[in-house]
Amino acid sequence: MNGAQSLIRTLVDSGVDVCFANPGTSEMHFVAALDTVPEMRGVLALFEGVVTGAADGYGRMADKPAATLLHLGPGMVNGLANLHNARRARTPIVNVIGDHALTHKGFDAPLESDIDGLNAWTNGWSRTSGDPASVGKDAAEAVAAARGGRIANLVLPADVSWGEGGEAAAEVLPPAPATVADDRISEVADALGENTVLLLGSGVTRERGLRAASRIAAATGTKLFAETFPARIERGAGLPAVDRLGYLAEQVQWQLTGVRNLVLVGAKAPVSFFAYPGKPSELTPDGCQVHVLAEVGDDVLDAMERLAEAVAADTEPVLKEASRPELPTGDLTPQNWADVIGALLPDGAIISDESNTSGILVPTATAGAPRHDVLTLTGGAIGQGLPVAVGAAIACPDRPVVCLQSDGSAMYTMSALWTMARENLNVTTVLLNNRAYAILRMELARVGVEGAGPKAKSLLDLSTPDMDFVAIAQGMGVPATRARTAEELAEQFQRALAEPGPHLIDALVPPLL
Amino acid sequence: MNGAQSLIRTLVDSGVDVCFANPGTSEMHFVAALDTVPEMRGVLALFEGVVTGAADGYGRMADKPAATLLHLGPGMVNGLANLHNARRARTPIVNVIGDHALTHKGFDAPLESDIDGLNAWTNGWSRTSGDPASVGKDAAEAVAAARGGRIANLVLPADVSWGEGGEAAAEVLPPAPATVADDRISEVADALGENTVLLLGSGVTRERGLRAASRIAAATGTKLFAETFPARIERGAGLPAVDRLGYLAEQVQWQLTGVRNLVLVGAKAPVSFFAYPGKPSELTPDGCQVHVLAEVGDDVLDAMERLAEAVAADTEPVLKEASRPELPTGDLTPQNWADVIGALLPDGAIISDESNTSGILVPTATAGAPRHDVLTLTGGAIGQGLPVAVGAAIACPDRPVVCLQSDGSAMYTMSALWTMARENLNVTTVLLNNRAYAILRMELARVGVEGAGPKAKSLLDLSTPDMDFVAIAQGMGVPATRARTAEELAEQFQRALAEPGPHLIDALVPPLL
Repeated sequence: MNGAQSLIRTLVDSGVDVCFANPGTSEMHFVAALDTVPEMRGVLALFEGVVTGAADGYGRMADKPAATLLHLGPGMVNGLANLHNARRARTPIVNVIGDHALTHKGFDAPLESDIDGLNAWTNGWSRTSGDPASVGKDAAEAVAAARGGRIANLVLPADVSWGEGGEAAAEVLPPAPATVADDRISEVADALGENTVLLLGSGVTRERGLRAASRIAAATGTKLFAETFPARIERGAGLPAVDRLGYLAEQVQWQLTGVRNLVLVGAKAPVSFFAYPGKPSELTPDGCQVHVLAEVGDDVLDAMERLAEAVAADTEPVLKEASRPELPTGDLTPQNWADVIGALLPDGAIISDESNTSGILVPTATAGAPRHDVLTLTGGAIGQGLPVAVGAAIACPDRPVVCLQSDGSAMYTMSALWTMARENLNVTTVLLNNRAYAILRMELARVGVEGAGPKAKSLLDLSTPDMDFVAIAQGMGVPATRARTAEELAEQFQRALAEPGPHLIDALVPPLL
Repeated sequence: MNGAQSLIRTLVDSGVDVCFANPGTSEMHFVAALDTVPEMRGVLALFEGVVTGAADGYGRMADKPAATLLHLGPGMVNGLANLHNARRARTPIVNVIGDHALTHKGFDAPLESDIDGLNAWTNGWSRTSGDPASVGKDAAEAVAAARGGRIANLVLPADVSWGEGGEAAAEVLPPAPATVADDRISEVADALGENTVLLLGSGVTRERGLRAASRIAAATGTKLFAETFPARIERGAGLPAVDRLGYLAEQVQWQLTGVRNLVLVGAKAPVSFFAYPGKPSELTPDGCQVHVLAEVGDDVLDAMERLAEAVAADTEPVLKEASRPELPTGDLTPQNWADVIGALLPDGAIISDESNTSGILVPTATAGAPRHDVLTLTGGAIGQGLPVAVGAAIACPDRPVVCLQSDGSAMYTMSALWTMARENLNVTTVLLNNRAYAILRMELARVGVEGAGPKAKSLLDLSTPDMDFVAIAQGMGVPATRARTAEELAEQFQRALAEPGPHLIDALVPPLL
């Protein structure tokens, strides 16, 4: 077999059987090799930001990596923004980056660039396969690195891909996460109480972690928060309800008022998303002591459950009761559209949330809805929502995916809609079309700009011309409708969920501000 | 004034008065400062690949830099692919990359990343402004570096932007290009003749350079070629006609058959775009001697004109006579659509060419059309055509811009259409919709893959679902029509050119292969 065949065979044998791809000439042997390994599914996307965002969504829901196929440095750069989000989410991803043949590297052909520099930017595991015989081994190690919660970048030169002598390699297991020492658990146990907050992050925002946290809270009076942008949080009726820290520094300061002990559980101490003149970057209250139960990379869930056993052995978690908002009526508002979602969210839904300012009331409106997962914008690089929905739908074909997507961010990776149509994915996109970079209108004031002029305001405005997302979606093969009232949104949302395949609702929701 | 105000004032005083922007919170003071410097025009784009591609098109046509405004590392990565093309084109561009406040850098907030690493990837000039008082000086030096033919990356931390104490700086002139020594010109003069090729690159593919080259060719029998992907080439009736080297290695080998001396004039010796099994990367014929008249960065045009004076003092250039193809009829084919363009191309047009395989006959069909400029895909990073058209139209508001754009590549930066509508730019886009990555179908065979299977073929296919570019364009505010026949294309092309503002024609041209 050639290098490409050994690579794909190794990926499949290591449990990686989906490859999101946007190939070019240097990847043609990889593409051809897909037909020789029937277990590997290739999913075409029309832009690398969709490729990597889909791999992120897939990894968050499948708990294992997808592969990507990227075309040299210029293909990789297009995928970096969503890899940035994936890095923040600790999503396992194996990037296969096609490169020029090793014999061709020295000639500075037009697409030549410094791929190593890009690999470094991802803060991940990186290797260039040097010959066909080593590709399999390299791939197995890439999968192991990815499973450890990193981006793995495997550079595949074209002649290594097409060269004969490839050998499939056996799966390599990632190192086990470090177990937290007993005395650290004891120290944290001593700090629990009403003036203490447990801040839940990587590994403990799903059912088991939340149940353990809820028991601790119930037994000790400790408060719970999840980090602002969890990679994946399970919530809804029948699960413990945990609020997330706010996006705005002012919200976090309010949430942490009077807290004397902050316990980090796979999370970092909160910092402001941006700096603002005269305001602090660190949001831990003055005089509050920070404790670390478990760091990212530790066996965070195990530590959490041991802490629960230590302080709440006989305590049951507090579970959210089922409750839904009433279906609202009238013109859409920043408030009532969220109630429509809360009233109608189907059981087992996966929400890909890039609703930004429009979505500020969604967590409240959906708190008592049937159990669901929420995938958030972990790294702040916009254009994540639609691609993550693609990946989640491929990971979980039997679950409804609801993509709550702001207009400005949608334009970054709009062609994800085409992949939804091509793969007939059960994704219902609610496009929050407020015709503005509304978050920047808010931020303009928050950073201290007074009396912004017409040029400044113009750069935050998306209404000249208005975008017609019904037309754009239909142009990419996704059935689409427009909702101006809560009744229309409810009717269209129900119908989209009832029909197979993707749908988009262009929801004309006015800006919050 | 604050740092942002001093930056914009300095840019304007240095001749930079257009800023393509996609701002975020960390750039809000820059955005607000636009209103304090009336000479600076801000142009909003919905994705950074449009921002940087527009700056590339602007720079190629205006012969001076535009500024860009990018949002931290994740914003910059989205713009890197078109910066790669701009680097290959040696287009002057000043990127202003907003960053977190210096006081906020240490906290690893979600959008934090290694911007220095990205700057390095562009192979450009880079600096981070450390305080408001130095921003003006830094900006003036950035403009000088850009004018020298490099990407200039100026990182602007938010607190340096908002801090008071900014001072506008005077223009800094770039160093003059190196003058080529007389003996090098003599050496090249001795090598001229019928077995010699002058390969024309940076600086000599416009009127003056072409006229000098044509005189040399007429006097000595020397053959002329332009490099495969010139940043900008002037052509048409009344100018010397110079063919470009082909994209395919086989074409170049045929074009250079029997050549004994290859003279590089602001160009590099030709190499294959990609590597192919068993085929050479270097395309200079065996035994051919390579001479360098002038390197990129030298005063290439001066060297060319001195060479012409030395060997062709009394010789006139050979100018292309006006001629146009007849308007074809019948269903669109890969051949006849190019004749429609050749028959109807308006005087003074600027062609942004990303037509790829569909455009293979465009140079022939337009050779005798009225004088025009062609901007090509210099770096191979697709998604350039529409953004470059935006920038060209802003640089040259009185000239018609014709964007010849392949379907697959269009999907990378489609939101450029929205900016065309917003700015009411005179761009006529002919969208070559062959519903395939047709170039990859060709490349699949050329790299030696035989009998590609259904999965491989599926990854090169854009027909499931078909994209409706009329709907997509209309959704972004650009009037659009669909052409299935040559007559329809001709009628729609003429009408689009006659009306102000942008138009798109979804031309259903079958694949070449």
